[in-house]
Amino acid sequence: MTTILGLDVGGTKIDGLLVDEQDQVLGTAEQPTDERPLHEQVLAVARVMLDGQQPAGIGIATPGEVDSRTGVVRLAVNISLPETPLAALVGDALGAPAFVDHDARAAAAWLLSRDPGADSLAYLSVGTGISAAVAIDGRILRGGAGLAGEIGHLVAVPNGPMCPCGLRGCLEAVASGPAIARRAAQAVRAGEATQLGPDPTPAEVYRAAATGDALAGRVAAEAGEHLARAIRGIALAYGVNQVVIGGGLSRAGDPFLTPILTALDAEREASALVRRALPPGAISLLPPDARAGAWGAVLVARSGLRDMSRERSERREVDDG
Amino acid sequence: MTTILGLDVGGTKIDGLLVDEQDQVLGTAEQPTDERPLHEQVLAVARVMLDGQQPAGIGIATPGEVDSRTGVVRLAVNISLPETPLAALVGDALGAPAFVDHDARAAAAWLLSRDPGADSLAYLSVGTGISAAVAIDGRILRGGAGLAGEIGHLVAVPNGPMCPCGLRGCLEAVASGPAIARRAAQAVRAGEATQLGPDPTPAEVYRAAATGDALAGRVAAEAGEHLARAIRGIALAYGVNQVVIGGGLSRAGDPFLTPILTALDAEREASALVRRALPPGAISLLPPDARAGAWGAVLVARSGLRDMSRERSERREVDDG
Repeated sequence: MTTILGLDVGGTKIDGLLVDEQDQVLGTAEQPTDERPLHEQVLAVARVMLDGQQPAGIGIATPGEVDSRTGVVRLAVNISLPETPLAALVGDALGAPAFVDHDARAAAAWLLSRDPGADSLAYLSVGTGISAAVAIDGRILRGGAGLAGEIGHLVAVPNGPMCPCGLRGCLEAVASGPAIARRAAQAVRAGEATQLGPDPTPAEVYRAAATGDALAGRVAAEAGEHLARAIRGIALAYGVNQVVIGGGLSRAGDPFLTPILTALDAEREASALVRRALPPGAISLLPPDARAGAWGAVLVARSGLRDMSRERSERREVDDG
Repeated sequence: MTTILGLDVGGTKIDGLLVDEQDQVLGTAEQPTDERPLHEQVLAVARVMLDGQQPAGIGIATPGEVDSRTGVVRLAVNISLPETPLAALVGDALGAPAFVDHDARAAAAWLLSRDPGADSLAYLSVGTGISAAVAIDGRILRGGAGLAGEIGHLVAVPNGPMCPCGLRGCLEAVASGPAIARRAAQAVRAGEATQLGPDPTPAEVYRAAATGDALAGRVAAEAGEHLARAIRGIALAYGVNQVVIGGGLSRAGDPFLTPILTALDAEREASALVRRALPPGAISLLPPDARAGAWGAVLVARSGLRDMSRERSERREVDDG
């Protein structure tokens, strides 16, 4: 049987999906990331899932700067990652062609594939890191250095909190999972009344906000305002008017989304520009069980295999000609 | 003789260029904008320049939300502008086909046409307003609503100064010409020692900064920091690593550019991501006498005329077929 393995490398876990030609799911896996080199972690998950079988192809979706032609990944701010020829290392070890793309771009390609009517949309991933992937006229934006969409490192607060990337006040430094956990922990330490423990996770913050905890509500509202400004920025910078939000934090659902929509309503109220750029209904959450990254990785493998077979038949034509 | 009229509508003036088929300049004009409806101002400049001749086509580059297919312009934040079918109004009055595009996109198209080696670049216009136009893989980004590149209304300072668009703390509210003039005037009123008069123009601020005036230098440095962050944002959001800066403020030359480059050097020092995204030499100033907007408007007319003649010959084929 021809199978495809899709692997989605996140800031905290690797999500795997093994499917057949008809996209029937044959197996899934979820493995927390650790300190080992990325390709070893990816291989460990892949070996467990494949259990000795050889897949037709392997797709890997990963954060950072990804060159999808060479399969080289580098500069993933939130995972310790020297320049890694990830596709070659994984493909050689498993004896099957492997392909790599940026995780948000893989997810956006999947969203685009599910909605044949859409030709322009942005996918905003909010988790350990924050990045966007943008489809315009049916094509995923890559940019020369493969950096297009790294909006987690646009300014949110000038001279604000330090970001792991080395800059200050990046969107990621004020609205990512770690940023929200840090803000909440600081407020808890300051002695404010709250149901939160001393080191709350972002999920705990959103749960507490949903039950009316004032401290948690304030932290969620602040993050929502930053994300609303980022979404306005996405709409204006790229000229897309459909934004789907996914990533770890989005799994909190309404307590995550409501502060964003509230802040965007206030922006719409204030500005005709925002009303034009982001009509009501422009924002939606990725369903929490969508596994968009892993499905996107499957698409990455399929499109890589298609390119390979096209190149092979072109070479044959040249040889025969 | 076949002539093309290119008109560039800015926040403070309309710049006109009349050229022949070989791009030889037959005439130029510059007219301050006033309170009349936009199409009347454009027509006044055009009539003076044409002096009774009929051009083969008219191209108009204008800020705001521009639908280049319909020729309708709206929502130009800095010029009083209801929804205006600008191409139709101007074309009908002058008896020649008229075409409209966004001013920054027109300038970017011109930059791209001058450098056949470049396929991805951003043009950042900093004047009364701030916007960007981006070419990726040789194509100018438009976006569904024609809003792509409206980065003047991305956040620079959360809850910062009021912007004419209705939002607070937009890049335009802290780094455009009017914002710089306002900041300097506030500091002058506060009684600080300076060579500046009570209501300095941005050009005066940059001239004073160049002679060592501390107040003017501080205002220029702050604007430069905001613009450096915006340029980093452009590089990361679009994945382009060549940014050309034009617009009214850029005519100040080094006193305008140096604070931007200083701030970007500090960002490069701090962040491997910025070093990758913006290699040295990535930033340049548009030569002050380039008239990129007006030349871009000429290109808008030429490409509009090409599309018209292609459509006409396709219709002929259908009729003949």
